[in-house]
Formats: sequence, structure tokens, C-alpha cells
Amino acid sequence: MKLMTPSFIAHKRDGHSHSPQEIAAFIDAFLRGSVADYQMTAWLMAVYMRGLDDEETVALTQAMLHSGRVLKRPQAGAPRIDKHSTGGVGDKISLPLAAIAACSGLSVPMIAGRGLGHTGGTLDKLEAISGYQVSLSVRRFAQIVGRVGASIMGQTADIAPADRRMYALRDVTATVACRPLIVASILSKKLAANLDGLVLDVKVGRGAFMASKKDARALAKSLVTVANQLGTKTIALLTDMDQPLGRSIGNALEVKESIDILRGIGPRDSTELTLRLVSEMLVLGKVASTRKQALVLARRSIDSGHALERFIKMVEMHGGDPAMISDPRRLPRARHVVPVLSPKAGYVADIHPLRLALLAQEMGAGRRLLSDPIDPAVGIELCAELGQHVEQGAPLCLLHLQHKSQRAVEQAQAAFTLASRKKAARPLVVEEIRP
Amino acid sequence: MKLMTPSFIAHKRDGHSHSPQEIAAFIDAFLRGSVADYQMTAWLMAVYMRGLDDEETVALTQAMLHSGRVLKRPQAGAPRIDKHSTGGVGDKISLPLAAIAACSGLSVPMIAGRGLGHTGGTLDKLEAISGYQVSLSVRRFAQIVGRVGASIMGQTADIAPADRRMYALRDVTATVACRPLIVASILSKKLAANLDGLVLDVKVGRGAFMASKKDARALAKSLVTVANQLGTKTIALLTDMDQPLGRSIGNALEVKESIDILRGIGPRDSTELTLRLVSEMLVLGKVASTRKQALVLARRSIDSGHALERFIKMVEMHGGDPAMISDPRRLPRARHVVPVLSPKAGYVADIHPLRLALLAQEMGAGRRLLSDPIDPAVGIELCAELGQHVEQGAPLCLLHLQHKSQRAVEQAQAAFTLASRKKAARPLVVEEIRP
Repeated sequence: MKLMTPSFIAHKRDGHSHSPQEIAAFIDAFLRGSVADYQMTAWLMAVYMRGLDDEETVALTQAMLHSGRVLKRPQAGAPRIDKHSTGGVGDKISLPLAAIAACSGLSVPMIAGRGLGHTGGTLDKLEAISGYQVSLSVRRFAQIVGRVGASIMGQTADIAPADRRMYALRDVTATVACRPLIVASILSKKLAANLDGLVLDVKVGRGAFMASKKDARALAKSLVTVANQLGTKTIALLTDMDQPLGRSIGNALEVKESIDILRGIGPRDSTELTLRLVSEMLVLGKVASTRKQALVLARRSIDSGHALERFIKMVEMHGGDPAMISDPRRLPRARHVVPVLSPKAGYVADIHPLRLALLAQEMGAGRRLLSDPIDPAVGIELCAELGQHVEQGAPLCLLHLQHKSQRAVEQAQAAFTLASRKKAARPLVVEEIRP
Repeated sequence: MKLMTPSFIAHKRDGHSHSPQEIAAFIDAFLRGSVADYQMTAWLMAVYMRGLDDEETVALTQAMLHSGRVLKRPQAGAPRIDKHSTGGVGDKISLPLAAIAACSGLSVPMIAGRGLGHTGGTLDKLEAISGYQVSLSVRRFAQIVGRVGASIMGQTADIAPADRRMYALRDVTATVACRPLIVASILSKKLAANLDGLVLDVKVGRGAFMASKKDARALAKSLVTVANQLGTKTIALLTDMDQPLGRSIGNALEVKESIDILRGIGPRDSTELTLRLVSEMLVLGKVASTRKQALVLARRSIDSGHALERFIKMVEMHGGDPAMISDPRRLPRARHVVPVLSPKAGYVADIHPLRLALLAQEMGAGRRLLSDPIDPAVGIELCAELGQHVEQGAPLCLLHLQHKSQRAVEQAQAAFTLASRKKAARPLVVEEIRP
């Protein structure tokens, strides 16, 4: 491969397509060290410019997936269905969803990520629960999935190592925002769990990675096409991320909201999206034959208290403190809770998700670099929802802070737009992408 | 720079221009190790796709030039004028040219390269002379230029190290054939000799790096623009490389032809081009006020025997055997000289330069990898020139070989096209590019 690498790179540079065999050989040579990092990044830049077609993306995903360990599937057992979200502001769905799906008859082996930039990471949220271990051996992970029906852990060193090395290179060479590379990166990790089905939540709007519907749709279509071609039944929902999801942004606050959803007292939007995604999973796993039937199952697991019990069990098996879930007041709390008041009366016409997310990040809830520490206690709790009428001086949101800051209050206030008329609500699910 | 590198790369990726300061900082950071090789290659690929404008190319050349040592210019002395060729088949011009120019009143500090692919390298030719040292200290190089008026040596480790490192990366990442990168690479090395003027011989045709006139012209224009903006008076000639230059291809054979040119008995085309390039150098250096006057000076140095003496002196100062120059029969000779006969009578209508060059390379005169050894003795000597009438069975060329090979004879024969009519001769100088 060493001598052939320059012509492989030139082929993509000039806009031609690679054969699946060529891509497999290239990734294999990269892992064995006979393709150097500086050759990989030249190729990645050529791919950024020229793209990859579906066949190439399938081949790349497969090569990256098989660069590491693919989990064993137990001989018997519930259908293995996972969910993946492209990340949004206030998106804590994975936590309640895993418990509800497990309760409703699925196996959910969820390999999740950390937050970077303005979107929070599932692992960071779980680590707000004291003692929760996100680094497990593959054996322990399989055990927990077997016993509880769900486990959420981080990527291990032996899962898709090609992706980890390529992502580290993309991060420092301006080649992250490239659709086929994103598709291969997401799916090589997710499919390493050896799934029967996958439901994708592709966020679209100002708080999402994809701000435009066109880009989000293209990403969703490519993810669905590639995953199905690789033999995993996959669908995607385009969901609204033009407003924050639910009422909390920040790790412990989002765990609290997840518990509320499991208790049946969660906010309308985050509860609705959780149930919708679970019902898609149940239909994919053939536990239910229609979404309506699936919804009944999912709601029953909440009403019976079983889903919450299941979540507590999962937390316990991960070494987390179950008392924090039974009594969320025990979750980490910030020193100050400062209300942000409405400067005038009116209808809440807009809550800017990116502004709030960047503020939360600045307050310590998120990180700029992967090595940055996170403060689980800080965050933003919304008091007013979209379309609601507020009086002058009524609280728009609460800032959970370690140090009082007038600037933070002003920044939070600036994220809200008030209007004299109520605007029509936007649908939560914007579009469905099915194979 | 570390944190800024991805956005620097993204800037070029998206087709924007860098400021001269940004380019200088990037190259500086690369040299200091805070820009990694894998970041450099991603940028090089982005440059390959998006290009660099003249201002960026000037800045890049300057940054690469100042990455290493720039030779001192003696306080007094002859004008320092050099020549650079982009490389062609049978192009041995540098050897006689340096001696003639030195004889006619110029200082020629020539930093030359090795051959790679089908074009021969000046250093490889000089090394056919037993003892000739191409690796000199900068001090010794300056001494020889001071005493003889000319010295031809290889790039030292401290001349344009950024170019050396970037070229090694380009070579393995399919980013060699990119005009602004070629311009910066050529000029950063040439201008390290601290020149008053530079004459560029940009080859065009089937035996050249640039096969089309359009590409050759664009390269020549860019070289001339950038070099002049950096303060070195520079002109370029586009010269024909659709036919081999002179009558020999192969290292010792080309030294022999160089001696013939210096003796006034060289082939018409290589002699003419040598004199034309020297006369451009003499005008640039203001030793002559017109090309006509310059030609008289150059011819006089040949006729008087002074140019040949000067060449012998240069060879001697480099440790080479002067007897090989006085008596070229002492140059390395191949075991066999095999004539390639004309299969029919006719006018020589075409001699394919690339076919002959690849054959010579295969015979051992050139290298595929920089580490390949070279056999100085082997090569091809043309017996028939373009437009000449040959009888059936008359020799078209002689193969100087270590091992007889019928296949080589057939390949050589296939490089010649015979026609029933004489075709009009092509001009040697296709175009002049002046600032």
C-alpha cells in the first residue's frame, strides 16, 4: 500500500470514486501504520472537497467498524435497538429513553459520547450522578444489558479504533464538517454494538450541528441508507432544535428532568420526544406492530413506576448512587440560583438555544477542549415556555451558578424574545426519513 | 498557532486568501514543530484544490526561503546570475552555460537538483565525472564561485529546510503537481543563493513536466511575477521539449555533449539554447546591453577555448578528474554500443522524448526512487536529427548498454516516426515571458 497511497489520494483528489476493496485496504494500511497520519489527512481533505458516494461511505463505515471489536450478540434475548442523537441543547432523551425501552421489552446497548462545544454529552450527564462509571469492560457492559435491559457507557479503546484516530486528526485539520465522514464516524461506533435496529434523532435548527433542514435531511438520508445497507434496520426523525428541548440545560439539572420524565411529570416536549423515539424503537424491534400500540407500552412503563425502577437499577449497576435518583434533591447543586426576570410583559416568541447553550458552557456546564473539566451542578432552568404569556418582572429562567454574575443574567435575558401576539407552535418532529 | 491551525486550514479549504503574516506564522510554526505534518498535508491538499494567489505565493516563497540560510553576497564582484530549467530530456545546458557565463563576466552560484522520474538531474550528470563532489559547505561553494566564477552544487541541509520537508510530504500525498507550490519550491531554493538575476527555462511538450503551452506559460508567468516581487530580476523562456534536446540522453554522454558545446562542436539545438540562455543572463547582469552583444561575448569565450578551460577549472575545484574533460573518451563507458537501425527510408518526422527518456531510465540512466543508484555510462546517442533523411538500415541512434537487449532496441525504434515528406522545423524558443 505504501507505494500506492499517493495514487489512492490522487484518485479522490481528482474526483473519482474508490472501490470498496481500495477503501478497506487503505483503512487497514492506516491501522497497520503503513499509511501515515499525514497521508490520511491529505485524503480526508480531498474527501471534504470531493465527497464520497453511498457505496464508498458504506465501505468506509464497514472498514472503520471492523477496525475494532464488534460486540457479541447473545444467542437468545430481546431485540437490540439503540438510539442516536446528533446533539442539541437540553437533549437528555437518552437517559429516560434507555430505561423505558428496556422496560418495554428491548435490549439497549448504548455506546454514548461526551459533549464538545455547545451540545451536552450523555456521559457528562450520567457522571453528575456520583459514582456512575462510564468506562466499563465490554464484558461488564454485556452483563448489565443482559440483567437490566440497558446500559449506557463510553467508547472503549477497542471499539472502532480507526474512527478514534481519524476523528482526532479531523479535529485539528478542519475536516470535521463533512457528511460522509460524519456518517461513517457515527455508524462505525453505533454498529459496533451489533444492533438489530437503530433510531436516529437528527436535530435541525439554531441549536443543532445542522442549522438548515436541507443539510439535516441529507445527513439523515445518508445515515439511513448506509446503516440499512450494512444490515441494521434504521430510520431517522428530523426534530426541531430551534428552541431548547425541555426545561433544563446543564448536567445535574438534565438528570433531574430525566427523572421527572420517568415519573410522568416531565415537560411536554421532552416527554413527547422520548415517547416518540421509544415507540419507533419498539416498532423496529417488532415488540409492537404499530406506533400507537408502542406508545401504550411505553406510557404503561412510566405509569407503573417500572421505568424509573429500571433507571435506578442501571445507575446502581454502574456504581452510581441510587439515592440521587430516588431523591433528586441530592444531585449536585450550585451555590446560587438567580432568577432572570422579564423586562416587560408579553408572549414568549423565541428562546435562542445557542445563546443559552454558550452561556451554560461559559458557566461551566460544557467544555471547549476535551480535557476541560465540567461542573455538574451549574446550568439553566427555564421557567417560561414558548408561547406562554409572562408579566413584567416574572422569571424567564433560573441560573444555577457558583458565582453570581450580572453579565450572565443579561446574556440569559437576551436569549428571550417577547412579542405582543402568540405565535403558532412548531412541530417537534419535522420530518421522518425511512429507507 | 496550535489552536489557530485548524481555522487557518479551514480558511484555505473554503477558498479564502491568507495574509502574508498568516503564511509566515504557519511556516514558522511548522518548522518549530507546533504545526504537525498531518496538518501541513491537509493544508497542502486544500492549496492543491483552491490555489494561492500571487501575494500568497510571494509570502510562501519568502517564508520558505527564510526558513534556512541565505548565502552572503560578496561586497564587490560580478553580478550573480543563475539559470533554472524545469527539466527535460537531454537537457544538459547548465554544464556548458555555467562555464560560458562565468567566462563572460558573471558570477554563477548554481544550486542544482537530482533527477527523478524521466528527467535527468544536473548533479547526476556532474557525478559521471569521477571525483566530482556535489556536497560542499556553503563556504567552499562561495570560494569556488569567487575563484572560478561558477560552481554547481546540491542543496545543503541548511538551505530552505521548509521546502525539503514540504516536498517530502507532497511527494507522498499527491500534492506535487500544484503551480503555486512548484513556484515556491523552485524559488525558495534558487533565491537562497542571493541572486541579482535569474533566467528560467520552462520546458513545454511531451518530454516536459508541463505538456501544454497553457500550463507552461502559467507556471512561467507565476515564477517571473513572484521572483521579481521578491527583488530578483527574472525572465523566462518557454522552450520546446516536444523533441529531445541535443543528441544525448544519459549522464556521461551528456557530459560529453557539454564538452562538445564548449569546444564549439556541439549539436545545433543544444548549442543555440545554451547561447540564448547565457545571453539573457548577460543582459540581466548588465554585462551586455543587448542580446546581440551578449551573443558575441559568449561565442568569443567558446572560440578562444576559455570557456572549456573554465569548466575544467570548476571540475578540478570540485575534486573531479580534469583529464576526463580534456579527453572525454575517459568518461565512463558502457560495455556495449548497439545501433538502432531504421526499418525504412524516410524523413525523421518525430522523436518521442518521453519514450526515449523512460527507456534510458530503464537502462539505468535515471531513477524511480531517490534512493535508486544510477549508472553514469548508459544512455542513448541520437544519430539522426529531426527533418533529416535516413536510408533503410541507417542508424537512428546508438544504445550504450551494459547488457544487450532486443527489447530495448525495439523500444528505441518505436520512438522514431519516419515520413515521406520533410516537416517544418519547430522553433526552439516558443515564447518569452518578461515582467
